Amino acid sequence: MAHEDPSAPHTRRERVYNIIFGYDTPEGKAFDMALIIMILASVTAVMLDSVEPQSLSVDRFLYRLEWFFTLAFTLEYGLRVYSSPKPQRYIFSFYGLIDLLSILPTYIAFLYPPANFLVVIRILRVLRVFRILKLFRYIGEANLLFTALVNARRKIFVFMFAVINLIVVFGTTMFIIEGPENGFHNIPHSIYWAIVTITTVGYGDITPHTPLGQTIAAIAMICGYAIIAVPTGIIGAELMQEFQSRSAPSPKHQRNCPHCGAGDHQTDATFCRLCGGVLEKDA
Amino acid sequence: MAHEDPSAPHTRRERVYNIIFGYDTPEGKAFDMALIIMILASVTAVMLDSVEPQSLSVDRFLYRLEWFFTLAFTLEYGLRVYSSPKPQRYIFSFYGLIDLLSILPTYIAFLYPPANFLVVIRILRVLRVFRILKLFRYIGEANLLFTALVNARRKIFVFMFAVINLIVVFGTTMFIIEGPENGFHNIPHSIYWAIVTITTVGYGDITPHTPLGQTIAAIAMICGYAIIAVPTGIIGAELMQEFQSRSAPSPKHQRNCPHCGAGDHQTDATFCRLCGGVLEKDA
Amino acid sequence: MAHEDPSAPHTRRERVYNIIFGYDTPEGKAFDMALIIMILASVTAVMLDSVEPQSLSVDRFLYRLEWFFTLAFTLEYGLRVYSSPKPQRYIFSFYGLIDLLSILPTYIAFLYPPANFLVVIRILRVLRVFRILKLFRYIGEANLLFTALVNARRKIFVFMFAVINLIVVFGTTMFIIEGPENGFHNIPHSIYWAIVTITTVGYGDITPHTPLGQTIAAIAMICGYAIIAVPTGIIGAELMQEFQSRSAPSPKHQRNCPHCGAGDHQTDATFCRLCGGVLEKDA
Amino acid sequence: MAHEDPSAPHTRRERVYNIIFGYDTPEGKAFDMALIIMILASVTAVMLDSVEPQSLSVDRFLYRLEWFFTLAFTLEYGLRVYSSPKPQRYIFSFYGLIDLLSILPTYIAFLYPPANFLVVIRILRVLRVFRILKLFRYIGEANLLFTALVNARRKIFVFMFAVINLIVVFGTTMFIIEGPENGFHNIPHSIYWAIVTITTVGYGDITPHTPLGQTIAAIAMICGYAIIAVPTGIIGAELMQEFQSRSAPSPKHQRNCPHCGAGDHQTDATFCRLCGGVLEKDA
Repeated sequence: MAHEDPSAPHTRRERVYNIIFGYDTPEGKAFDMALIIMILASVTAVMLDSVEPQSLSVDRFLYRLEWFFTLAFTLEYGLRVYSSPKPQRYIFSFYGLIDLLSILPTYIAFLYPPANFLVVIRILRVLRVFRILKLFRYIGEANLLFTALVNARRKIFVFMFAVINLIVVFGTTMFIIEGPENGFHNIPHSIYWAIVTITTVGYGDITPHTPLGQTIAAIAMICGYAIIAVPTGIIGAELMQEFQSRSAPSPKHQRNCPHCGAGDHQTDATFCRLCGGVLEKDA
Repeated sequence: MAHEDPSAPHTRRERVYNIIFGYDTPEGKAFDMALIIMILASVTAVMLDSVEPQSLSVDRFLYRLEWFFTLAFTLEYGLRVYSSPKPQRYIFSFYGLIDLLSILPTYIAFLYPPANFLVVIRILRVLRVFRILKLFRYIGEANLLFTALVNARRKIFVFMFAVINLIVVFGTTMFIIEGPENGFHNIPHSIYWAIVTITTVGYGDITPHTPLGQTIAAIAMICGYAIIAVPTGIIGAELMQEFQSRSAPSPKHQRNCPHCGAGDHQTDATFCRLCGGVLEKDA
Repeated sequence: MAHEDPSAPHTRRERVYNIIFGYDTPEGKAFDMALIIMILASVTAVMLDSVEPQSLSVDRFLYRLEWFFTLAFTLEYGLRVYSSPKPQRYIFSFYGLIDLLSILPTYIAFLYPPANFLVVIRILRVLRVFRILKLFRYIGEANLLFTALVNARRKIFVFMFAVINLIVVFGTTMFIIEGPENGFHNIPHSIYWAIVTITTVGYGDITPHTPLGQTIAAIAMICGYAIIAVPTGIIGAELMQEFQSRSAPSPKHQRNCPHCGAGDHQTDATFCRLCGGVLEKDA
Repeated sequence: MAHEDPSAPHTRRERVYNIIFGYDTPEGKAFDMALIIMILASVTAVMLDSVEPQSLSVDRFLYRLEWFFTLAFTLEYGLRVYSSPKPQRYIFSFYGLIDLLSILPTYIAFLYPPANFLVVIRILRVLRVFRILKLFRYIGEANLLFTALVNARRKIFVFMFAVINLIVVFGTTMFIIEGPENGFHNIPHSIYWAIVTITTVGYGDITPHTPLGQTIAAIAMICGYAIIAVPTGIIGAELMQEFQSRSAPSPKHQRNCPHCGAGDHQTDATFCRLCGGVLEKDA
């Protein structure tokens, strides 16, 4: 690959780059669409593969399909490495690792003999499902949601810390009250119960049997019920702020009146609302 | 029906139209009220019909009631087709199809001999419950709620995509950790478990038994608990915006410029932002 | 009671009224506090009474306590009727009926012989718990929360209607798919399942067993998970509006500048922020 | 300790204070980090200690680790008492009691003979988990979240009161309808069921069996589902207000009046609202 000049325009490599990494050209869009369909089809095939028992013919069909997808994703990976201006950066990026992870298991299961042990085989086959993470490339991280979550990360951390404290305290208390004889085998197990309860999942695999335990459990539930409100409020308030800062006059529209200096004019204003002077047009 | 002149005012067809499709006249309101009561009564009858065992007399009463409702809804359907200015558009509209679906099963079960097979009969009888969808006509789609949901559709889609990824990853991981011996039979089954867990439904029909599995499940629960906040925040922020954009320019501030007619001026504006003319002060 | 003159000030009846219905005087506050304690003690006693088996002495103590509370609440009821300016209106008001309901069961169980049947006795004894509703008198209906809920009632109704439609459609579909052989005995029972699922309660007493049923159930769960966001958004937005309209400059502070007419001044402003003219003081 | 002069600067005691109570110096940060790690390690050790059965060597290792942590926390407690300017206030503060509680159980179990009874030993060992509360020192109570919760406390109280009323009414009604024969043993037990249901936890350990009971349960679920919206709305609205009041006067707009020094002027203010002096324009 070293014989290509990366700075020359319209080389084959750049054309490949535009198709594989780009979203604008018709070829780029077609490639993306084909890739999305292949990812979904591949994940569906892996899922079906895990359902037992299947007829031999279905099994063989899935086996061939798997090799077809693996080779296709290998080709995609190769082209990405080949066309990327900085291959090393791509290879060690989040997406590069996901792309590699989506083809490796099939090769390892094929090439590496000890992998014939049942457990390893099963894990390798199942790991192919993580190909679905390749789709993350298409939702765009610069999204409003991510911005809101990132902005709220400190508040969410404080909240999570309080929830974890609550869970540990309730779990330990229930271990003391109910004890192993009522299914609360040890503290980690009781904390598992506390998480199941406070998040309102409530499997019912571990439940309090003593009146005192049921009272504490009831308090834990009402706490869990009340605190779900906190992250919701945080995210909601964060999103509201995002919305308002976006829909508010963006910097270039915050024209000040050249006559009286008043700002905060509406986007379509031609005259200052306070002194009536002519406003400058936006660039 | 072709002999009627659609443009002539006050024809019989128009009067029927006003009663059946209209909401303003007393007859229209009475018709709507009668229809709503009949829909609810009919759905209740179909529900009771599915409860076994019943005495013969109740069964016969429900059978006769069913024919009464079917004939009444058939009459309603016929009148709608007859009075609609563009019958074809009505027939293939959402409501037209719902209206047809609410009468068809009874006729098919009566007329079509192979329908005597138990399964088909059961499905046909049960499908009559979908008559309840006829009520959708009365809640008005141009609603604030629908607007907010439609506006937020892209954000909700991105969120749903993230949730589905999370569900696939957790489901697959649990299949590896717990495996078929602990009730996680295959990947789709494990994904069903992940959905039951992350949505905090928590049936308890599949639960983790290994400490590692319980740890992963606990993480899944806390994730599910935290991300419920996101759609709530989205919808809440969307609704706030709807509210504000509707209530924002309160009547007395909606001063139109007496010179150019432009409205929507800021509260403290003295001059029209578009023509620079002097605005009238609020009373 | 007719011999009292209702318009005469400081009669015994008015003094009783101020103690029992009033909140301002020290006697009124002491009466309220004593009543709240007695309501809570009485409800606790009724609850303990339902726990079997108890020693004879506890049973007799609770029996005597019950008569003490009944007589006390009877005295309170009598005084309320006696001191109320319009006794009839009080008797047929919400609180009047609650007050009557909290004493009637004990008398009926004592006086009315057929009430000795076990079921009736049990119901009458248990109904005394509803004395807790007497506490509603003390939370004040003119509350911000109630205002927000009342304002949002139309939106909540539309939402509830959509949820009920969803529940009926999912319940019926599951009855067709799973059928009585998997625990979905009839349509009402399937609708009960749909409610348990969509509200994310998830008892696990009825669960889907077929793959198709589990898929539909998973869709129902995700729907339920997503739509919980809607009422939260509605209430949150409603409350925000309440807050803003309360904290916004109240009418008397919306002083316009007498020189330039600019409004929206801060509460503590003495001079107009736009022209520097002296503002008029608030009354 | 009385021989030290608390007002003298840079004494040994003050240096200890700065390391232990301070956050600013490198030593203070290192101490905090070491303490956090030790708390987490200690809590993990106590949790593992509760998991049975363990090999003798692990047991002995955990025993020695426990004494190491206890001695370390004792040293920390001693230094805090020693360096605190007002030792008594520290000892009886929330954090002082938590610090004491985190070392006491080990000493009591060691010194007090009757503590050899199994139940007491177990409780004492488990109580050490509450050391996790020592972490609360590091999240800062002056947080936005706490402010919002404290501001909303009255509204949350009213809401909680309404929820408790609802729970009592539904629990009692179900006790009447289902009764002990269907698992609703007594009123407190039925109220436990109502809490499990309304908070949408839904263990499934107690479920309604009669059609009427299932109908009431369904209504309870929908109520629970709808009212979760209320605290969320309260907290969200509260947080929004916090955000706005904090972000409102952005730095560049926080112009102080050059004449009277008053701040917090509106964005478009030209004149000081308090003294009428001309404000400087924003850069």
